[in-house]
Amino acid sequence: MLILDGLPDRPLNGKTPLTVAKKPNLDGFAEIGINGIMDTISPGIRPGSDTSHLALLGYDPYRYYTGRGAIEALGAGIDLKPGDLAFRANFATVHGNGSIFDKVVVDRRAGRIENTEELVKALKDIDLPVDFEIARATGHRAVVVFRGNFTEEVTDTDPKVVGEKVKRCKAKKDEVSKIINDFIQKAHEILEKHWINEERAKNGLPKANALLLRGAGVMKEVPSFKERFGLKLKVISATALIKGVGKLVGGEVFTPPTATGNKDTDINAKIQSSIEALKTKDVVLLHIKAPDELGHDRDFNGKVRFVEKFDSYLPKLLELDLSKHCLIFTSDHSTPVKVGEHTADPVIVSIVYEDVRKDEVKVFNEFEAVKGGLCRIRGTEILKIALDLLNLTEKFGA
Amino acid sequence: MLILDGLPDRPLNGKTPLTVAKKPNLDGFAEIGINGIMDTISPGIRPGSDTSHLALLGYDPYRYYTGRGAIEALGAGIDLKPGDLAFRANFATVHGNGSIFDKVVVDRRAGRIENTEELVKALKDIDLPVDFEIARATGHRAVVVFRGNFTEEVTDTDPKVVGEKVKRCKAKKDEVSKIINDFIQKAHEILEKHWINEERAKNGLPKANALLLRGAGVMKEVPSFKERFGLKLKVISATALIKGVGKLVGGEVFTPPTATGNKDTDINAKIQSSIEALKTKDVVLLHIKAPDELGHDRDFNGKVRFVEKFDSYLPKLLELDLSKHCLIFTSDHSTPVKVGEHTADPVIVSIVYEDVRKDEVKVFNEFEAVKGGLCRIRGTEILKIALDLLNLTEKFGA
Repeated sequence: MLILDGLPDRPLNGKTPLTVAKKPNLDGFAEIGINGIMDTISPGIRPGSDTSHLALLGYDPYRYYTGRGAIEALGAGIDLKPGDLAFRANFATVHGNGSIFDKVVVDRRAGRIENTEELVKALKDIDLPVDFEIARATGHRAVVVFRGNFTEEVTDTDPKVVGEKVKRCKAKKDEVSKIINDFIQKAHEILEKHWINEERAKNGLPKANALLLRGAGVMKEVPSFKERFGLKLKVISATALIKGVGKLVGGEVFTPPTATGNKDTDINAKIQSSIEALKTKDVVLLHIKAPDELGHDRDFNGKVRFVEKFDSYLPKLLELDLSKHCLIFTSDHSTPVKVGEHTADPVIVSIVYEDVRKDEVKVFNEFEAVKGGLCRIRGTEILKIALDLLNLTEKFGA
Repeated sequence: MLILDGLPDRPLNGKTPLTVAKKPNLDGFAEIGINGIMDTISPGIRPGSDTSHLALLGYDPYRYYTGRGAIEALGAGIDLKPGDLAFRANFATVHGNGSIFDKVVVDRRAGRIENTEELVKALKDIDLPVDFEIARATGHRAVVVFRGNFTEEVTDTDPKVVGEKVKRCKAKKDEVSKIINDFIQKAHEILEKHWINEERAKNGLPKANALLLRGAGVMKEVPSFKERFGLKLKVISATALIKGVGKLVGGEVFTPPTATGNKDTDINAKIQSSIEALKTKDVVLLHIKAPDELGHDRDFNGKVRFVEKFDSYLPKLLELDLSKHCLIFTSDHSTPVKVGEHTADPVIVSIVYEDVRKDEVKVFNEFEAVKGGLCRIRGTEILKIALDLLNLTEKFGA
């Protein structure tokens, strides 16, 4: 399953990047396949990349989505158990007197600090009534997980805007919010006087003297991909969020060393790894982040160029025996360049396999896909359709 | 959102009113829009106008429908609170001895009595253990609401056929059914000897000496449109049932003074009011009843003529800036002239907005719509799709 993140678009002067790009190989696959449009969540629901990837792997996101904190924590390499409470965190700069909750956020990214290794290490010794884990994520970001049998959602401590005070975490049970609030007070005390921050201050850099928590989520009981489908899954992605989804469903995750998660990624390595993976795994999800980034950047020509470049690597997939392998070409959502954000416009889907009911679609784009033999399907259905084509599903009834 | 009530049809000798009518403007909107077919409830479910309008406003009718009584009561101007028990009522004529339940219905409409104002007034003083409201509806009809914390459905007292006795209301709890049955007994006693009925008897007219109750429904907790979507809604309709749906979801409702709810309605006033309403509201639902009436009347040519007349007023909508406004042309259900009733045949839907993925459909009718870029969607999805196009939806996930 090839996910071209955020690739589909809305027309600008009647054109989308996919109607402009020269992409003979994607078109060729559309021509030999069965095509359609797909609402990864449901019509009119604007998908996140996490919720939509859950759906594409056959998991109803309304049932299994655990909040971004848990997915990012999994993506950062922390194993989660049901009941663990996970947050995304920013290293930030606060000023003022009193406790952390009296202080004002002056920089939500602490001057975009990159090297947080020592700071994270220093925080691991905080004494709390529950176990916790902290791990670095990209740049000024981290993830924090409190172990336990948490059952309820709690509020963020990140005020999300500069100039406001750090928020107290609120929860139904006072003992829950107290754990979080004690943690960020103690973290602040350690960070404030850490030698790295003293050096930063000397060099005129903002201190990374606070952790702001957001994206709270309690880990749920999620049946593994193997349990649900009896199949082995591998997710190939350079994006922590997508790797987190792979982990959430118990898949193996892999990032080729030369993959970057953006437009300069090593397409060849990613495709090659996917073909390799199919030797030992049943389902491989190959995630390509760049079109989404280019959509967020409102870069029409960038999307065109990336599609053309990506397309040139696709003949490699013809090494696969299409009587044994089923290829799905699709996306997790649209990221139209005019909007610069995810939208609910349906994605394109092409299924290529020897035995599909081939339709008359010959071009992979938003306007042709609607004429395809799949009509309009849902994200949670696509994997089941493919498994059925491969005769890997159980009969319901007699 | 323009709702042409009951407009879609089944073919008669291969033709529907929409394939015969000259409607250059509706076709023009289809041509610049994205088109499809829609099951307002779900495939094969024959929609009422109330349940389908609920769905079109984004409310699952299986969850939020409160029964026709409650919707009509809201449409007649009675405010309802959760737990109130509402009925539609007919002024009727009963004959016989004993209590109301020993008497036989001889005319379910009391000679189609129109002037019920004094009768309704006289009933307001009935002494009951709960508060109640009664209000006139069109013609011989009224609505009755019992205030309280009712939790269960109760049975009707209207036998629905002439020649049968008035039915006792039944409920799980005897104290509930006793309230209703006492009410209709006391109403009968007051009506029987009311001077209006004495005059009617003198003039050889049937006495309006009984109230028959039907369409029982307990008002539910329904989140308002503003709460659910953060948007202001106005419903423009001359039909009490549709106005009731608008009230149920907390919308503002409006009937232009010259609107009639049938084929001689003031189309210009309704379209003009809708355009005006868009200056202060976010979502405007314009309901046009006539095609449904003509479908019930099995009047093929009437439908053709009405569509042609209606179409001539549509250029007014071009005053709206289609980069800011999203127009939806659709219906609540089909009312085929051959059937004379609502059917579950999907309705046509065209969405007109600058950024839609325009398809190849150029004509607004049942046969062309199926070739459109929306494929086949559900009633509860259409508003979400439009709000997403306008970038007014929240992302689910990250």
